[in-house]
Amino acid sequence: MLHAINYYMILKEIVRKTRSYRRFYQEKQISTEDLAQLVDLARLSASGTNRQALKFMIINEEEKCETVFPSTAWAGYIKEWDGPAEGERPSAYIVILGDKEISNSFGVDHGIAAQSIMLGASEKGFGGCMIASLKKEKLRDDLKLPGRYEILLVLALGYPREKVVIDRVENNDIKYWRDDNDIHHVPKRDLDELIL
Amino acid sequence: MLHAINYYMILKEIVRKTRSYRRFYQEKQISTEDLAQLVDLARLSASGTNRQALKFMIINEEEKCETVFPSTAWAGYIKEWDGPAEGERPSAYIVILGDKEISNSFGVDHGIAAQSIMLGASEKGFGGCMIASLKKEKLRDDLKLPGRYEILLVLALGYPREKVVIDRVENNDIKYWRDDNDIHHVPKRDLDELIL
Repeated sequence: MLHAINYYMILKEIVRKTRSYRRFYQEKQISTEDLAQLVDLARLSASGTNRQALKFMIINEEEKCETVFPSTAWAGYIKEWDGPAEGERPSAYIVILGDKEISNSFGVDHGIAAQSIMLGASEKGFGGCMIASLKKEKLRDDLKLPGRYEILLVLALGYPREKVVIDRVENNDIKYWRDDNDIHHVPKRDLDELIL
Repeated sequence: MLHAINYYMILKEIVRKTRSYRRFYQEKQISTEDLAQLVDLARLSASGTNRQALKFMIINEEEKCETVFPSTAWAGYIKEWDGPAEGERPSAYIVILGDKEISNSFGVDHGIAAQSIMLGASEKGFGGCMIASLKKEKLRDDLKLPGRYEILLVLALGYPREKVVIDRVENNDIKYWRDDNDIHHVPKRDLDELIL
């Protein structure tokens, strides 16, 4: 007999494996259909006052990806690394925009949306990184984006080409780092420290 | 033979059923252990520059819940309703705080955290509502919260006592409403409208 599935544990596993990935198999494409399905998760998520003022730009053509990449900043803590090299760059992006014809403030709607999308990406075998550090004016120009849309967040996506592990924070040092085997370590604070 | 489980579909189902609930079986308590497990989902989620500057206050004692409730605003679109009546109020809250000793800006970290928590809550049989419309100074006083912590978001939680359904947006009207059978309707925009 099958036991009842503990969905909380499944969700926890999904959350745990949804790490930030920064190196990808660039040659492996992600389909527009898959990306639209990820946006659908954002669509079904909570939105402040149910305004649903976010818009999403799906980018998965090679040339278009090359346009977006130079506007993104990567892994601030790894000083000797300028971001993924040609060949290991994202093969898709979802640009999250705020539609100012609907609202002038977007609260944390893009955080909610981004988390739904990244969890879904992980379940589709993709990985990626939420990027807030952006050259927004350059990106706006390069994407020929009308002034109506505010650039809020870029989700870089691809098939992960690196291993990421969670460590415990030691000596209050939360900087992620790479070891000699090229494994990316992310120190996370203990639960006790987060609950007042 | 068992077919491979499509985890994306499971996740979509989790996202779909994670609606905003505003009426609860107030007498049904939520344990501190359950609430801490929800915070653990936030702990494992992405955080800007991995700073992990969020802190979480778990509130599930009856008296403490009574302290929080008057600082929360409910369902702005339903004008004739002042929020859940005594007996159908949340039986727990998670107050999401920004720790200013760690960072002065929290980006959308609380949106990411809130979504992880609400998805987990739904998998535990709870439901709730992310509340950004708060009397923050009153809440700070009532919770005796040191100035170090910025109040970012309150998650109201309980066992849902209402039915919530998703409708399609018609005539660009995104206001949620209640029908004669007391069912709460949430119009969501079509996917086509969200993708540029």
